[in-house]
Amino acid sequence: MRDITVGILGVGRIGKLHADNLVRLPGVRLEAVADPYLEPEKWEARGIEWAREPERLIGNDDIEAVLICSPTPTHADLIEAAARAGKHIFCEKPIALDPERVRSTLEVVAETGIKLQIGFNRRFDPTFARLRQAVVEGEIGEVHLIKIVARDPEPPPIDYVASSGGMFLDMTIHDFDMVRFLSGAEVEEVQAFGAVLVDPAIGEAGDVDTAVVVLKLTGGALASIENSRRAVFGYDQRIEVFGSKGGIEAFNETPRQIRLRTTNGVRSENPHYFFLERYHQAYVTELEEFFSCIRDDRDPAVGGRDGLIPLLIGMAATTSMRENRPVRVERPEA
Amino acid sequence: MRDITVGILGVGRIGKLHADNLVRLPGVRLEAVADPYLEPEKWEARGIEWAREPERLIGNDDIEAVLICSPTPTHADLIEAAARAGKHIFCEKPIALDPERVRSTLEVVAETGIKLQIGFNRRFDPTFARLRQAVVEGEIGEVHLIKIVARDPEPPPIDYVASSGGMFLDMTIHDFDMVRFLSGAEVEEVQAFGAVLVDPAIGEAGDVDTAVVVLKLTGGALASIENSRRAVFGYDQRIEVFGSKGGIEAFNETPRQIRLRTTNGVRSENPHYFFLERYHQAYVTELEEFFSCIRDDRDPAVGGRDGLIPLLIGMAATTSMRENRPVRVERPEA
Amino acid sequence: MRDITVGILGVGRIGKLHADNLVRLPGVRLEAVADPYLEPEKWEARGIEWAREPERLIGNDDIEAVLICSPTPTHADLIEAAARAGKHIFCEKPIALDPERVRSTLEVVAETGIKLQIGFNRRFDPTFARLRQAVVEGEIGEVHLIKIVARDPEPPPIDYVASSGGMFLDMTIHDFDMVRFLSGAEVEEVQAFGAVLVDPAIGEAGDVDTAVVVLKLTGGALASIENSRRAVFGYDQRIEVFGSKGGIEAFNETPRQIRLRTTNGVRSENPHYFFLERYHQAYVTELEEFFSCIRDDRDPAVGGRDGLIPLLIGMAATTSMRENRPVRVERPEA
Amino acid sequence: MRDITVGILGVGRIGKLHADNLVRLPGVRLEAVADPYLEPEKWEARGIEWAREPERLIGNDDIEAVLICSPTPTHADLIEAAARAGKHIFCEKPIALDPERVRSTLEVVAETGIKLQIGFNRRFDPTFARLRQAVVEGEIGEVHLIKIVARDPEPPPIDYVASSGGMFLDMTIHDFDMVRFLSGAEVEEVQAFGAVLVDPAIGEAGDVDTAVVVLKLTGGALASIENSRRAVFGYDQRIEVFGSKGGIEAFNETPRQIRLRTTNGVRSENPHYFFLERYHQAYVTELEEFFSCIRDDRDPAVGGRDGLIPLLIGMAATTSMRENRPVRVERPEA
Repeated sequence: MRDITVGILGVGRIGKLHADNLVRLPGVRLEAVADPYLEPEKWEARGIEWAREPERLIGNDDIEAVLICSPTPTHADLIEAAARAGKHIFCEKPIALDPERVRSTLEVVAETGIKLQIGFNRRFDPTFARLRQAVVEGEIGEVHLIKIVARDPEPPPIDYVASSGGMFLDMTIHDFDMVRFLSGAEVEEVQAFGAVLVDPAIGEAGDVDTAVVVLKLTGGALASIENSRRAVFGYDQRIEVFGSKGGIEAFNETPRQIRLRTTNGVRSENPHYFFLERYHQAYVTELEEFFSCIRDDRDPAVGGRDGLIPLLIGMAATTSMRENRPVRVERPEA
Repeated sequence: MRDITVGILGVGRIGKLHADNLVRLPGVRLEAVADPYLEPEKWEARGIEWAREPERLIGNDDIEAVLICSPTPTHADLIEAAARAGKHIFCEKPIALDPERVRSTLEVVAETGIKLQIGFNRRFDPTFARLRQAVVEGEIGEVHLIKIVARDPEPPPIDYVASSGGMFLDMTIHDFDMVRFLSGAEVEEVQAFGAVLVDPAIGEAGDVDTAVVVLKLTGGALASIENSRRAVFGYDQRIEVFGSKGGIEAFNETPRQIRLRTTNGVRSENPHYFFLERYHQAYVTELEEFFSCIRDDRDPAVGGRDGLIPLLIGMAATTSMRENRPVRVERPEA
Repeated sequence: MRDITVGILGVGRIGKLHADNLVRLPGVRLEAVADPYLEPEKWEARGIEWAREPERLIGNDDIEAVLICSPTPTHADLIEAAARAGKHIFCEKPIALDPERVRSTLEVVAETGIKLQIGFNRRFDPTFARLRQAVVEGEIGEVHLIKIVARDPEPPPIDYVASSGGMFLDMTIHDFDMVRFLSGAEVEEVQAFGAVLVDPAIGEAGDVDTAVVVLKLTGGALASIENSRRAVFGYDQRIEVFGSKGGIEAFNETPRQIRLRTTNGVRSENPHYFFLERYHQAYVTELEEFFSCIRDDRDPAVGGRDGLIPLLIGMAATTSMRENRPVRVERPEA
Repeated sequence: MRDITVGILGVGRIGKLHADNLVRLPGVRLEAVADPYLEPEKWEARGIEWAREPERLIGNDDIEAVLICSPTPTHADLIEAAARAGKHIFCEKPIALDPERVRSTLEVVAETGIKLQIGFNRRFDPTFARLRQAVVEGEIGEVHLIKIVARDPEPPPIDYVASSGGMFLDMTIHDFDMVRFLSGAEVEEVQAFGAVLVDPAIGEAGDVDTAVVVLKLTGGALASIENSRRAVFGYDQRIEVFGSKGGIEAFNETPRQIRLRTTNGVRSENPHYFFLERYHQAYVTELEEFFSCIRDDRDPAVGGRDGLIPLLIGMAATTSMRENRPVRVERPEA
């Protein structure tokens, strides 16, 4: 098996994580990284080429695939450049916050014929994948209701909130993808409800920190998503899919498996602190899937269209909350 | 302690249940029952007076308190008659399906000064009462989100569906009461989503069998309710209250406490089959509360106004679903 | 169905419990109670005859069955007297602390042909009965290992300890019965280990408060029992049966079904405080079984021999611990 | 921070695992491996030196520390050779099956002053470490009882059984170490019970496949260990430590966190299949501890004496089972 040579564009927190995970993957070699703020000596010590300009990496003919982990505003340009250079692309979500920009980028990708996978990593979480399997294999019959609870342990910095596109595009977007993934259906209409209960500064920045979103799916099923920017007990990620023959529930994973019994009751552990710990395995598996698609010449399970649709749902949710009315989701083909 | 003498109007399933529970309560004596279809010999054997006409029981001066367990359309008339006869009243919900009728009945009750308790039994479930305690004692801080899952094991007969007032007045009404009980807040606005996924006959009868309802509460918290008329695995009654300092969750009770480990995984038991088993203790405790209110001359925790408000919420939910828009809840005083 | 008329000999805590439970059983009527210390007015108010002398109750020809709930030293004499009077007998364990006395009592019972059921109530606990069912139906294959954890919430008074016959005859005797019940096998050999870790006064009274007992069963399976006189978190009653095709575990029942999540972890409830709460249902079901045996003329599932054998095991355990060696269990027929 | 250069002696299953784990550890470099059966090209591709003879690796002055992962009969010789070459040593358990050989090896180690850590990896499992923490911090008070359930998913090959030294030295030895680790006490006396219930061939090879072992600890606490060579539902590794202020329980870890509810009950997952999956993290953490001891010049938490003592306990257990009597454990200093 020939090694796939890989470059990473952007080696901040998530780019570094992918770089470390690549080491463990057989048949893959990290060749180069590019980031204006990188520390050259760390990469040299690992025998990895480095550059400050992404163009240099994209222009490197030895590199077959790139991981785009740079800030969101750079994603669309880098996808287009890398696609035109004939490289397969794994890109962190979102492609862009403007659907028109996403559409034009996807057209470039379509012309070049390269593989594009979007980093909706949660689809590759073993627990959530098991939920999807239950649906596919009919273990719970026809899907009637999906319920997602997704709560962060603490809000992001207010600066980040202000430029994030709002909670529905920043946080709930993962849940929109999950609803599509689990149901195999599309979202037709959305009604969103938001509140500022965690921190008034979030409200002043024009966002909400607590939300309930209800989705009507093709085929008639309903989904509800409950979000909070702060669960003091840790990263709360639970899902239930309920159907005509039963239901399947994903509960939180804990660092350790203990029960402490005292006069105060039975105490067990809180969930992992946040997404890096919780989705540790999903980050590895999504890359395995990406490289496997390149090797087997098949389309990634989470392609460009899967990057566009949650954005359209998120925009509908934002409108719904502002105007306090149900909003139909724009079709991706529009 | 002097015994409180009690009569029961209507001894169908729920009336019989109360009759059996009364036996175990100290300081209470079941004196008489009235029901057009009762079997006299069964009650005679227990030394209990019987009549076919409710008027005879209401006219019995030896009776201090009545439990109204007859069909819904008779509730308002019987409450008024019993109140005018000076008897304290425990009445199964709902008082009536028409808010105006409820209001006029409550006026009669107010004039007579008798105690009126409405049979929202779930408030007296030890598990749900523990959730309320967590809110009251500040264990979870300020309430941000309430989530109720309430699923029946199987739909009622289609005849019943057609005359029930619809799922929101028949089934969700308990959950509306629970949201008020747990939050200590009132519902300002409701948005309901319904679907017919369990049985097309329910749709033909003009009702839905699957629903998600979102409630905006005074103070800003949000609540969501998820209902299904059929959970094949049993009566599914789960609640979570989430707040600024944590969350508290009520999970299902099982008949036995076992785990069976085989090559097929770890199997534990499904919940109790239905409400009689699940709320067994709540049915006892609500009567204890009623008799205790009589003895201590205090107002029942679930009075007439608590019978009216969930009806107004349910009507708003019905309108919301039909018109696909958020609907504000009418004020009880209106 | 003709009513079975019942008398209770001894109406202390456990006798009163049975009296209350009898009320709910169809086809049974509590006729009379006898106890030197009873309060006549309480029984008169319930329309029940009373006496201070057991002989009067035993001599009452209207009574068909007696429940013997008096102190242990009286059991054997009362069984013999009641058996000779032709009454069916339910007797709390143990029959006596001296195996010879038990044997002679059982001979009297055998001669008279009356039904005798011993109050090993735990066999009738729905959870433990489910474990037995798993064994009988082959769900876990051949039994290899049984593990019982049985811990009291607090030690009995030291006076009681001193006259109890020791922990193995007083507390572990229930677990010996459970091993026989669950396995369907007999105990061949026992090795007991004890320690005084809870309260030195228990050691001074000649007993232990902490113990591990290992049993070799006919057929080759092994069982272990772990006892403590004080689990500060409540009455801890857990069992696991492990076999060639899997295992089944009974875990503790809690008063309420909640999880509280805060920064301190996830807190759930401790088990019921003690045996009256924990085995509430078992006390009802064992009486149902007793009356059903009388009606259907069949032998009780827990007869006299089942009263004798755990005593023999307990004596072997006591010897084993004292002499620090494995001890074979005497055969009941000896 | 200077890199520690490491060599691995024996790169079968466990040696390869350590080699892979080393990659992720900062400040450590795998320099060379030695194994008569290794595949040179695989190691060359990773830039790692290789040899067929251990002597060549031990003679390599660039190597500071070695991991001994070769077959058990070679351990003692390799420890002595490596110690004399001044290398720090991490050695898989056991050092040898003969206590005299272990003692002489430890003398060599003592003379050279190098660090020796024995591969009792379970001490580094985060869940079991949490149990130890509860004991150390007094969360459960004084330890009264320890209960270990350790069951393999399937028996090893019969050849292996025949040369393993018996179940107590091969399998239970980990549990003996765990009892010492959790209690902080030593084992004074042991009584072992064994049976052949899983596979008669194991009995023919002179071993047992099902066992219960009871241990008396210094200070008076009791411990029991339950072993089976075959739990059809997977690798069953549960521990409970019970004390004067409560108890703490380690339960099984599952690959995914789900509950599937159908008419057949609520199904969750079986534990990980076997030790490589279950103790994945422990294998990493034990190496971190080893290298940290080298860097900070402190004694490993699991040193040579900790390698000897479980062997002495295992031998006492073997004698106890054969002679059906309690056996005192030989002191390591003897």
